Amino acid sequence: MARTEPARGMRDFLPEDVRRREYVIGIIKKVYERYGFEPLETPAVENIETLLGKYGEEGNQLIYKILMRGEHEASGKADLALRYDLTVPLARVVAEHRAKLPRIFKRYQIQPVWRADRPARGRFREFYQCDVDALGSTSPAVEGELCGAVSDALTELGFRDFVIRVNHREVLRELLNEMHVPPELHGATLVALDKMDKIGVDGVHAELAERGTSQVSRDLLLAYQRVMEASCVKQRIGARAVLDWFAEIERTQPAGRPDSGTGEQLRAIFTMLLDTAACDRVVFDPFLARGLSYYTGAIMEIAVEGIGSLGGGGRYDNLVGMFSNESIPACGFSLGLERILVVMGERGMFPAQVTGAPADISVGVFPGEDIAHALRMASLLRGSGLRVSVYPDPAKINKQIKHADALRSPCAAVLGANEIAAGQVTVRFLATRQNEVYAQSDAGAAVVRRLGEMRG
Amino acid sequence: MARTEPARGMRDFLPEDVRRREYVIGIIKKVYERYGFEPLETPAVENIETLLGKYGEEGNQLIYKILMRGEHEASGKADLALRYDLTVPLARVVAEHRAKLPRIFKRYQIQPVWRADRPARGRFREFYQCDVDALGSTSPAVEGELCGAVSDALTELGFRDFVIRVNHREVLRELLNEMHVPPELHGATLVALDKMDKIGVDGVHAELAERGTSQVSRDLLLAYQRVMEASCVKQRIGARAVLDWFAEIERTQPAGRPDSGTGEQLRAIFTMLLDTAACDRVVFDPFLARGLSYYTGAIMEIAVEGIGSLGGGGRYDNLVGMFSNESIPACGFSLGLERILVVMGERGMFPAQVTGAPADISVGVFPGEDIAHALRMASLLRGSGLRVSVYPDPAKINKQIKHADALRSPCAAVLGANEIAAGQVTVRFLATRQNEVYAQSDAGAAVVRRLGEMRG
Repeated sequence: MARTEPARGMRDFLPEDVRRREYVIGIIKKVYERYGFEPLETPAVENIETLLGKYGEEGNQLIYKILMRGEHEASGKADLALRYDLTVPLARVVAEHRAKLPRIFKRYQIQPVWRADRPARGRFREFYQCDVDALGSTSPAVEGELCGAVSDALTELGFRDFVIRVNHREVLRELLNEMHVPPELHGATLVALDKMDKIGVDGVHAELAERGTSQVSRDLLLAYQRVMEASCVKQRIGARAVLDWFAEIERTQPAGRPDSGTGEQLRAIFTMLLDTAACDRVVFDPFLARGLSYYTGAIMEIAVEGIGSLGGGGRYDNLVGMFSNESIPACGFSLGLERILVVMGERGMFPAQVTGAPADISVGVFPGEDIAHALRMASLLRGSGLRVSVYPDPAKINKQIKHADALRSPCAAVLGANEIAAGQVTVRFLATRQNEVYAQSDAGAAVVRRLGEMRG
Repeated sequence: MARTEPARGMRDFLPEDVRRREYVIGIIKKVYERYGFEPLETPAVENIETLLGKYGEEGNQLIYKILMRGEHEASGKADLALRYDLTVPLARVVAEHRAKLPRIFKRYQIQPVWRADRPARGRFREFYQCDVDALGSTSPAVEGELCGAVSDALTELGFRDFVIRVNHREVLRELLNEMHVPPELHGATLVALDKMDKIGVDGVHAELAERGTSQVSRDLLLAYQRVMEASCVKQRIGARAVLDWFAEIERTQPAGRPDSGTGEQLRAIFTMLLDTAACDRVVFDPFLARGLSYYTGAIMEIAVEGIGSLGGGGRYDNLVGMFSNESIPACGFSLGLERILVVMGERGMFPAQVTGAPADISVGVFPGEDIAHALRMASLLRGSGLRVSVYPDPAKINKQIKHADALRSPCAAVLGANEIAAGQVTVRFLATRQNEVYAQSDAGAAVVRRLGEMRG
């Protein structure tokens, strides 16, 4: 017998799964379009050199590589690869189609990506990313609008308890310098700090030691991190509170200390955030690291208490330049669709119609009657806007009702010899087990009315 | 400089492309759901043995194969492959999830597939299929409903000139026997006959000769084909005309000739079709072949004069059995999304809003003003349901208007010092070059009203 399970780490989405996914994707799209973002789609398959070298050494190993075809197949060489994220393809597309795109290009992209990662709970080898990016401007209004759009999307999905942590790559660099971490250890230190949520203070301490950070730096970093977590990340929530705190720091700062410009950029971003839907959601977190190396400015992450990250992003002003002579500034956000779906499922956040029936009514005939009558009745009912499924076999009525029940159809219509002769139809409402007899020509309108009443 | 074009035979879909694709997919989905079909999605990547051996020798070679990961990568061995169609994954899913699916499972699936075919005009290596299938019933009502759903979908897309050619695998077999084609040449003969649209009578004649068909068979086949084309396919359009013709044949048929049951099945299908939206669209075409080998009963193809096929399908009662102990009857249709999109583009069948602007209004500030005012204004306008794009830089007004124009936004709002002080906003309607000044709090409702008037 052939194997029937999907490939390891990948999933079949049965109808109810698809409906939930489409509900979430539909809301995210609607919100992004309200902010003027346009849809983009790129191929699942890219030339392998487009992807290699863009995601670090570990990333390279997680890329699915596709064998050359035809006579080259036996050589074992790969010339193509599966999309690993949506950001590198975006940079390629902007370089390729620059002349056709608006000077300020705002796009969203919701497509699967593939990573040959070890599968784990909630970690899949095929998963969707929901990216939203704006290219062509260095204005802090871009960060503001992006955080606003993401806030609106999560709020419309029903999330009430998220914050958007904001930091700046330069803040991290300056911080590590102040803590006496030598530049060559910055990367490793950030990777370790980024794991605070997962492995806790002791875990981070151990990992920092392992990666060669000195005892002094470790103690300083973790002490500072604790102070920050308590005094700013947890307590100064909202753009207004953050700006007030920035002003306080400035007043108390020793005179003559040089400003790198980073503080100014952060102030400008939080000022923009005041006028967005994200205003009360944002916090400044000087320890927020984000794994990817291509960020050059602001970095952002959505945190939900007890859940962890639902997505993140940042500014990456140099990525498009890897594909083009022209350097184009860019900033974006990526929502983790799979995580959002899991949390919404656990919290019961899907409205009833998402998990509802595939058809409003199922139609069949009594054994011995011609099924053509059911097809004709179905056409009539569809004319009233109903979603109608025909039971194609002349099965016993009980079996047909059971099938309608299994599909969770609210009602089932059955045509017997008497109904057919009289031009009528009997409709059974499954919740109340009530039967109603209608003229066939009126049945559609009557069922629509009745279902409307039942819904509330 | 890195290459920026997509992989050979694959395409980037820029915003306008995506909008057109989503418009078509949206209509097809809506119609299929009206018939009670449910959405299904399967992974892009399958275990390689799931796909190998299912599509014939030529198919095997067109499958994209994925290298094993990690230490096995150097071996050049492939353990995974890219989805080649949506039917084999459906059969696998039904075998895997049988217990969770309704006894009669009606699903649609709209996803990309990948074939390493030689790229040509209109032929791509990544392309979408729109499949609709019903599993679990041998009733001719299934064929009837499928043809009805496909007819409704094409009609709602705006197609007026399509017919659905219907045949039966057994009719072809009997026909070839009658024309003295030996059984071992049936497959090759069907492949050649299937090319009539593409290579014409002379081409088919030559290919039949090459494949070893005798002169007598060739002449009989082509003569018969011409008669059929003239007397039945072109003239007997609609289920009623076909049934009348079947009755006529039966009356004139020599008594005692055995009926194989195929005629009975075809009559039952055309009788069902009388009560569907496909009633006036169907023709009987005894030469319709369809390439795939897994069909066991009815085969169908949508033909548009001067265009060729927009899709096809048929009954395949044995495919699920390749993955399961249980044999489950099945019948389905596949629409060719790429072909449909090309024809709709050439014929100008997309409504204006599909090719419209990404935003209803763009908002910016005069040089020197704080962009935060634009963000606040944008939030207000979005509250009225408008899609709003913020111009993030304090650029000259001309540049901002030009950008709005390039995006085909119907209007642009700009905030200067006077407007900001007065709590007002100037909205420029680009088509008429008229400026209107509104109170900021009223602007959303006013613009919604005005755009409504402009549309009609």
